[in-house]
Amino acid sequence: MGMENVGWLYEFLVAKAAEISAAGSQRAAVISISLFVSLLCVCIVIGHYYEENRWLNQATIAIILGCAVGFVIYILSNNAELLSFDEQLLFIYLLPPIIFNAGFQVKKKQFFHNFGTIMLFGGSGVLISASIVTAGCRYMFPRLKLGNLQMRDYLALGTIFSATDTVATLQLLHQDETPLLYSLVFGEGVVNDATAVVLFRAVQRFEEAGLDGKAALRMIYEFVYLFSVSTVLGVVIGLIAAYVLKSLYFGKHSTDKEIALMALMAYLSYMLAELFQWSGILSVFFCGIFMSHYGWHNVSGSSKITSKHAFATFSSISESFMFLYVGTNVFNVNIWQLVDVRQVGSRITELCYAAGANFSREGGICLSNVRHLQLCPCVVIIWWSGIMRGAVSIALAYQQFSTSSGTMNTDYATMIYSTTGVVLFTTLVVGVVTKPLIATLLPHHLRHLEPSSPKDESCEEANEDGSSIFLRRSSLSMLLANPTSAVHSLWRGFDDSYMRPFFGGGGPVRDSDAWEA
Amino acid sequence: MGMENVGWLYEFLVAKAAEISAAGSQRAAVISISLFVSLLCVCIVIGHYYEENRWLNQATIAIILGCAVGFVIYILSNNAELLSFDEQLLFIYLLPPIIFNAGFQVKKKQFFHNFGTIMLFGGSGVLISASIVTAGCRYMFPRLKLGNLQMRDYLALGTIFSATDTVATLQLLHQDETPLLYSLVFGEGVVNDATAVVLFRAVQRFEEAGLDGKAALRMIYEFVYLFSVSTVLGVVIGLIAAYVLKSLYFGKHSTDKEIALMALMAYLSYMLAELFQWSGILSVFFCGIFMSHYGWHNVSGSSKITSKHAFATFSSISESFMFLYVGTNVFNVNIWQLVDVRQVGSRITELCYAAGANFSREGGICLSNVRHLQLCPCVVIIWWSGIMRGAVSIALAYQQFSTSSGTMNTDYATMIYSTTGVVLFTTLVVGVVTKPLIATLLPHHLRHLEPSSPKDESCEEANEDGSSIFLRRSSLSMLLANPTSAVHSLWRGFDDSYMRPFFGGGGPVRDSDAWEA
Repeated sequence: MGMENVGWLYEFLVAKAAEISAAGSQRAAVISISLFVSLLCVCIVIGHYYEENRWLNQATIAIILGCAVGFVIYILSNNAELLSFDEQLLFIYLLPPIIFNAGFQVKKKQFFHNFGTIMLFGGSGVLISASIVTAGCRYMFPRLKLGNLQMRDYLALGTIFSATDTVATLQLLHQDETPLLYSLVFGEGVVNDATAVVLFRAVQRFEEAGLDGKAALRMIYEFVYLFSVSTVLGVVIGLIAAYVLKSLYFGKHSTDKEIALMALMAYLSYMLAELFQWSGILSVFFCGIFMSHYGWHNVSGSSKITSKHAFATFSSISESFMFLYVGTNVFNVNIWQLVDVRQVGSRITELCYAAGANFSREGGICLSNVRHLQLCPCVVIIWWSGIMRGAVSIALAYQQFSTSSGTMNTDYATMIYSTTGVVLFTTLVVGVVTKPLIATLLPHHLRHLEPSSPKDESCEEANEDGSSIFLRRSSLSMLLANPTSAVHSLWRGFDDSYMRPFFGGGGPVRDSDAWEA
Repeated sequence: MGMENVGWLYEFLVAKAAEISAAGSQRAAVISISLFVSLLCVCIVIGHYYEENRWLNQATIAIILGCAVGFVIYILSNNAELLSFDEQLLFIYLLPPIIFNAGFQVKKKQFFHNFGTIMLFGGSGVLISASIVTAGCRYMFPRLKLGNLQMRDYLALGTIFSATDTVATLQLLHQDETPLLYSLVFGEGVVNDATAVVLFRAVQRFEEAGLDGKAALRMIYEFVYLFSVSTVLGVVIGLIAAYVLKSLYFGKHSTDKEIALMALMAYLSYMLAELFQWSGILSVFFCGIFMSHYGWHNVSGSSKITSKHAFATFSSISESFMFLYVGTNVFNVNIWQLVDVRQVGSRITELCYAAGANFSREGGICLSNVRHLQLCPCVVIIWWSGIMRGAVSIALAYQQFSTSSGTMNTDYATMIYSTTGVVLFTTLVVGVVTKPLIATLLPHHLRHLEPSSPKDESCEEANEDGSSIFLRRSSLSMLLANPTSAVHSLWRGFDDSYMRPFFGGGGPVRDSDAWEA
């Protein structure tokens, strides 16, 4: 491995980089796909070796690797074509499998038992956070001489910095060891992302007439409308898929067709929501929940195993790819060129964002968490994981602040750059501290609250035990959880007598072996 | 369902079609993805209902559905943007999973036992067929006043019409009932496609200096070179994947990572081959063979089931999508506008292609099949399935005859149109007759040659029985098969003592339960 080899590699890379500039779209696609697929393989292998490491996780590794490669490409060529962030890629191809898998794998009992809490954490958290960030930016920016933004941009900023990235934290929690915490962080993360995107859509429909009471009411109406129709669409498609899978069960089975139908119907729910300009994230999340609750029970045994693992694999590849992509995007020269003139201002903005967002998250969560106050370490971890900003923020920033011909406005470039900076900072710094934090907080306080389930036992049952023990212990939360429980048991009755016989899932008898495979 | 509903639907569709013309690329992508995903779902459901039907199969259904939708879009709008065929989509995204799955699921013992026959069928068949079509076109076209083609174009035509589409036939054969025939048609199809693409690449490197002996020799050299390096690349990446999977086995396992690594490494082998302008099809096919022979044995039990079904699902979705895509492409107005002035000439060309190609296939197969003469129905089915032309032909035609700005040359447009016509004709007409043909030929002649294995028995074992009985019966083929058998047993010895211990797959003991799951 002398200098000659490195020289040869360098020349090869320069030649390839020059080729990208000159090449047609097919050639460029081949080169960048080869690059990213190789990086993904490297990521998986490194991630496996550092699995037990205290500081690193898959997301951190991917983002560091992406940065390194982006830097090498930046050094080798000034061509930014390969590195320009394409938010279409994220919204059309990467997010659907991740969110669908989130819905598909979520522990439904746990999720619906804590539905109220999760909606408070996720929904109101975003609303509070967005208001605070918007107000802060509106107050600070004119004083920082970042003046050319309009009210719509401030509102967009608020929602952009309300979309958290809980994926990185989830990688560190074990679903079997701490089911309740996992389900809270998980549900909160998904509802948070979905709410932020819905709010972003509502803001984009907002007309430039100043923010008065009427406009605010209209935005709230838009938000509620988008939230409801998207959820209903996802539920309906999930039920249709379950019904089709059940009625196609003619005694013989083809695993390929079953899996294909599940995946395609789920993707369809996302795409139809996007077609009507609703929220695909919410649709595909609820589609996943209903598909695993009903449709999954109608397929053959090997389809059950395959669907579970294949969707998880697809989701994990998309996730790693997303972090890699964000990493390479740091060295996007197009945006740098516009930004460096007022780096100072941008840095301040960045920090102000981060501080404002974190503060408001904290406020939102404390507010929504009064009933869980005795569960301090749990809340700290949820709050901590809520600090992270991820790919959704970047994608929204690009959608708001870039035109189809690339970003040309200096203010807009600064916004995109700042968003990338915040995401990088939170994923790397906050992400690195997460593992030690969880290790410090969890073993002493929480492990005895939730029974660790034996591996061979059904997860669903373990969850039910976990949550019931938890409810028994905390009298305050039990009192407040009563309305939710009432709704939940009503729903279970309806589910068992009408929904399951029609859409699949057998009786309550088949329920216990739901995730056994 | 009165006329009002239809009117509403019509208006909605017109509005959507108008939106595509006006929309940005993201919106257009959302609309066409929604359309194709819905069509795929419909295809699967219809395909399931007509599974027992005598005339229809999945490919025919997809292509008819595609045609119908293409026609509706053509009526609703003159916009051809949605319908323009993008061969990049085929070569980068659709073909790799199909061919990888072909290699991954192939019965390796059967495949390598009949390796010589398959290479003769597939390899020499293409060479003979390509020569005859090229010579025929060279002779006929100037007489049909289709004069502006160069030697390179004639050679390209030869290879385009040598790429067969055996997928449609394979859907009708059952791997468990007729393992030998299945393996022959299967292997022949893949080797055929790969050879055609390699030959096409060799032709594209061919310089415009007339076809003399030196140029022919150079082309043969290019062909052998591309064939060898692509195969070696696939084998090497397959072995690396197997080794990585084996060495990452640290006692504990993550199914997601294993499946992700398999899929990514396979895709990498395709992409690297394309990067070096070799043949991705050959690479990914051999990568699949080696990954299932070694790597597959190194993963956990649920990964084994998941990989088998997930790759098959991916492949079957890609296949249906391909046929749908070819169907919608029939109403590509851009090409029609150039073609209709000389429709007569184009029709004649088309028939001349079809006749020439079929004749030459027949010749090639008869030649390579002397040793199997007593297996007449088998040969008839292989010959029949060799008539079909599929998406690979269309993709190659677009690659040769279209420029990045679309096809502007009338001759070239005629070529593309004719290729589409031949593919449509063979898939619909030939495809419809295939099921009855197999039903007529097989039960009487072949079923007693190959024992029908009970369902619960291991497929590998059943195959071995099948081929050994077959070899016992046909003395002529046994005599001729001896060299292959010698090489095969030599390879098995080497495999058992050196390769398997290092790359995985256990000893010969674990071999029998290879595909049990």
